[in-house]
Amino acid sequence: MIKKLTLAAAALAVTGVAFAQQALKPEEAIKTRQAGYTYLGWSMSKIKANLEGTYNKDQVIAAANTIAAIANSGMGALYVPGSDKEVNGVKTRVKPEFFQKQQEVGKLAMAFNKEANELARVAATGDVAAVKAQFGKVGGTCKACHDDFRVKD
Amino acid sequence: MIKKLTLAAAALAVTGVAFAQQALKPEEAIKTRQAGYTYLGWSMSKIKANLEGTYNKDQVIAAANTIAAIANSGMGALYVPGSDKEVNGVKTRVKPEFFQKQQEVGKLAMAFNKEANELARVAATGDVAAVKAQFGKVGGTCKACHDDFRVKD
Repeated sequence: MIKKLTLAAAALAVTGVAFAQQALKPEEAIKTRQAGYTYLGWSMSKIKANLEGTYNKDQVIAAANTIAAIANSGMGALYVPGSDKEVNGVKTRVKPEFFQKQQEVGKLAMAFNKEANELARVAATGDVAAVKAQFGKVGGTCKACHDDFRVKD
Repeated sequence: MIKKLTLAAAALAVTGVAFAQQALKPEEAIKTRQAGYTYLGWSMSKIKANLEGTYNKDQVIAAANTIAAIANSGMGALYVPGSDKEVNGVKTRVKPEFFQKQQEVGKLAMAFNKEANELARVAATGDVAAVKAQFGKVGGTCKACHDDFRVKD
């Protein structure tokens, strides 16, 4: 029971619900979270390019720090009521279940945070093999959430 | 002369041109940089809300770290050739001069980086008055670039 409560509290922290927050309109919230994911995607693609080509430690550090910072930014606050479907012409690929399965979402979000922060730590060491392994773990947490909670293309 | 060269080198680093990079299509580059600015804007608005309302140190730290990480992420790489005007239906507000005045842009970018990193440092201390002052400096560097290189609404 204690474990459950702790997890719920952690999920709240991760999803940002416990934070003071500005009231964003649903369409603004959708656009802002999509912006975060777009920037995450760019950062991931840069690390991938470094792992597959010439490795630039500084670029990987910058990208990993960006991924970690966005992971820690409280994106949960961007899933405001009314942002579960297209609103005022702004589409979203989130499944309605995302808003119902808060504990499951919290677990996925925590896994992403944990692995993203670990990637930032590993990137700073410049250990390419470790970065490669950790990059895979981060990608796995992205995929886990997409599989369950994002509408397929 | 040395100062000039150093500045140019620093500008290169800031704008990311010296980094290995994936080839983004102009429209992808525009969307990605706009995503970065959108997420920056959200992060700035959260700090503003904390300064005007109840101050949550952790939220301000998270937002300031996000601003610094994006500032350090090499956004210059997102100003690829052909992204100076609307392309394939993706609009941009950047002025053509942005692509011609590289040294001036580099100075503005470096100022933004410097103040953003300092904001992250100050946020970690929890000194609200210092955060307020530094937040103003960061906003000033945003405005300086908007004034010179962004088309008015």
